[in-house]
Amino acid sequence: MPASESSRVGKWSEQEVLDRIEAIRRRAPRLRDEAINMAHGAGGKATHTLVEALFRPAFGNPSGDAALLSLEGRTLAVTTDTYVVSPLFFPGGDIGELAVNGTVNDLAVAGAQPLCLTAGFILEEGLPVETLRRVTESMAAAARRAGVSLLAGDTKVVPRGKGDLLFLNTTGVGEVRQPERLGLAQVRAGDAVLVSGTIGDHGTAIMLARGDLDLETDLESDTAPLHELCSAALEAGDVHLMRDATRGGVATVLNELAAEAQVAVAMREQEIPIRDAVRGAAEILGIDPLYMANEGKLVAVVAAGDAKTVLAALRSHPLGEQAAIIGEVRAEPPGMVFMHTAFGGSRVVDMLIGDPLPRIC
Amino acid sequence: MPASESSRVGKWSEQEVLDRIEAIRRRAPRLRDEAINMAHGAGGKATHTLVEALFRPAFGNPSGDAALLSLEGRTLAVTTDTYVVSPLFFPGGDIGELAVNGTVNDLAVAGAQPLCLTAGFILEEGLPVETLRRVTESMAAAARRAGVSLLAGDTKVVPRGKGDLLFLNTTGVGEVRQPERLGLAQVRAGDAVLVSGTIGDHGTAIMLARGDLDLETDLESDTAPLHELCSAALEAGDVHLMRDATRGGVATVLNELAAEAQVAVAMREQEIPIRDAVRGAAEILGIDPLYMANEGKLVAVVAAGDAKTVLAALRSHPLGEQAAIIGEVRAEPPGMVFMHTAFGGSRVVDMLIGDPLPRIC
Repeated sequence: MPASESSRVGKWSEQEVLDRIEAIRRRAPRLRDEAINMAHGAGGKATHTLVEALFRPAFGNPSGDAALLSLEGRTLAVTTDTYVVSPLFFPGGDIGELAVNGTVNDLAVAGAQPLCLTAGFILEEGLPVETLRRVTESMAAAARRAGVSLLAGDTKVVPRGKGDLLFLNTTGVGEVRQPERLGLAQVRAGDAVLVSGTIGDHGTAIMLARGDLDLETDLESDTAPLHELCSAALEAGDVHLMRDATRGGVATVLNELAAEAQVAVAMREQEIPIRDAVRGAAEILGIDPLYMANEGKLVAVVAAGDAKTVLAALRSHPLGEQAAIIGEVRAEPPGMVFMHTAFGGSRVVDMLIGDPLPRIC
Repeated sequence: MPASESSRVGKWSEQEVLDRIEAIRRRAPRLRDEAINMAHGAGGKATHTLVEALFRPAFGNPSGDAALLSLEGRTLAVTTDTYVVSPLFFPGGDIGELAVNGTVNDLAVAGAQPLCLTAGFILEEGLPVETLRRVTESMAAAARRAGVSLLAGDTKVVPRGKGDLLFLNTTGVGEVRQPERLGLAQVRAGDAVLVSGTIGDHGTAIMLARGDLDLETDLESDTAPLHELCSAALEAGDVHLMRDATRGGVATVLNELAAEAQVAVAMREQEIPIRDAVRGAAEILGIDPLYMANEGKLVAVVAAGDAKTVLAALRSHPLGEQAAIIGEVRAEPPGMVFMHTAFGGSRVVDMLIGDPLPRIC
């Protein structure tokens, strides 16, 4: 751990530098930008600042994940997501399947059984009706697979040049049967951190589909509904928290977790499952796969004693065959995520800065 | 009524023409367009065709109004709406207030108490942060007025030229306490049709705000939350159905009602409350105010014997001061809406065709 070393940076001791960084970390983020830029939608630091500095003061506590709602003894989970992915169709999926799975997953990681979804379309004038048909059929198929119905919908059309073919909002309502089981308050030092499979597949597949990389692979998006995998994990052991690692990737999920639960997370680089094609593409793009979006992978924080049982449960499901224990929760330093590298060192894994992979969901 | 006359159109008798029209009306709509055009988003005939020919086969029965969801003895109402109004700020409101009120109203006319809203933003790169701040503050104020919380949110950013400053989805969840009270099945011949105030204010205000008309008025959008007005109506008498007359106006609401409940609706032109400024603007635009959007007006179908009591209840609320009984439900001809004009004649009021007022919500 860096804190245990004792070098000096200029006139400050390393401890003073760390204290100063910690003080800055704890400050309420200030929004200095005067105009929205792509990074505000990337799910990383700029999105976080926008939420903290603008949405939270206005709305109280709007959650990007499923929010819980008490209804006289019952607990509903509600989540909303907007999809602006480009292109609309990509290896392994399309915007419709992505939207349905994404919302199903937000509910699933909250421990909720999905009750219904809604769909809000923004169509650009000139969109081929055939494209819309393919997207809606794909949504319907994804909803059937996840056992949820699309209950309400809305369609708006904007003039040519004021949109980009098709944007899609999906909102989901589910019911949480055991609301006391999962939550930031359950996370404690010593807990194991698991991922349900290889990371970065979706982000890489989208970049490849755009032709941004001169690379031919058979890599596909991992878009998939995680409700069965979540149930399997919950049945297998003492799971404290689950998140799906979408925009911003595993690094962002763990940073949010560390900040919100005021714990540290230590990852072991060798344990993180990454496909060779993703590793290769990441190298060319200069992006760490830890920041790449996944659309069918969950991160689970599990009581240390149950980690292996939960791991086995994940691995016994087709979507979790490559699940792994990638790290652990520590008490100190709160809010910090770091990585023990393959070379024996360690480095801080901060939140995503900028938007290296625009419009991946 | 036209059916009682007996003229001939070419070789067909009027009755044969009417029968033929009726047969065409009853056909499942076919989507002949190969590309989306603005009319598909206008809420009229093209939107209806898109829903019937494309969304319904894929999703079953997605409702544009609030859909009901049974939850072991309790009934939830869920509704989603996307807002692409241009300009974002207009006399009497803005996109944020419009979105919150619109979703609150979809729940209210379903007889539901709102439980929560979600908000999904699509921001165009370059949007001034100050604009976003004004919109979110306006949403928060509207939510407070309606006594509902914004529980979950999501933000995406699209590159400059791929959006139009800001699009907004709001989805609402409410609870229906007496689900058996309201519904198409309750509507019967003889019921009175009420509106809660002047029609066409919102659509006209938007057209004026765009400067499309060389006209100066102090007309404002009627955007307002209807939950109190709906409660007042329900408490006052035997209300069979409520709808908010947004996109497509009162004419569209009544056409949908007539088609879905297989009844006719007869309106009396003199009874329909319309402001002079709206009437004037409508004349210049060549659009019937019946097709103009309202964002704070409800249409209620009420048992004949209770019509006056419900009218009095509406009028005793500030938002319903100009409420009126504008017509009645009849048994024949099913699916037809017509108007007794001020001149003693009658005319068919069909669904909106085309999109004379794009992006009014």
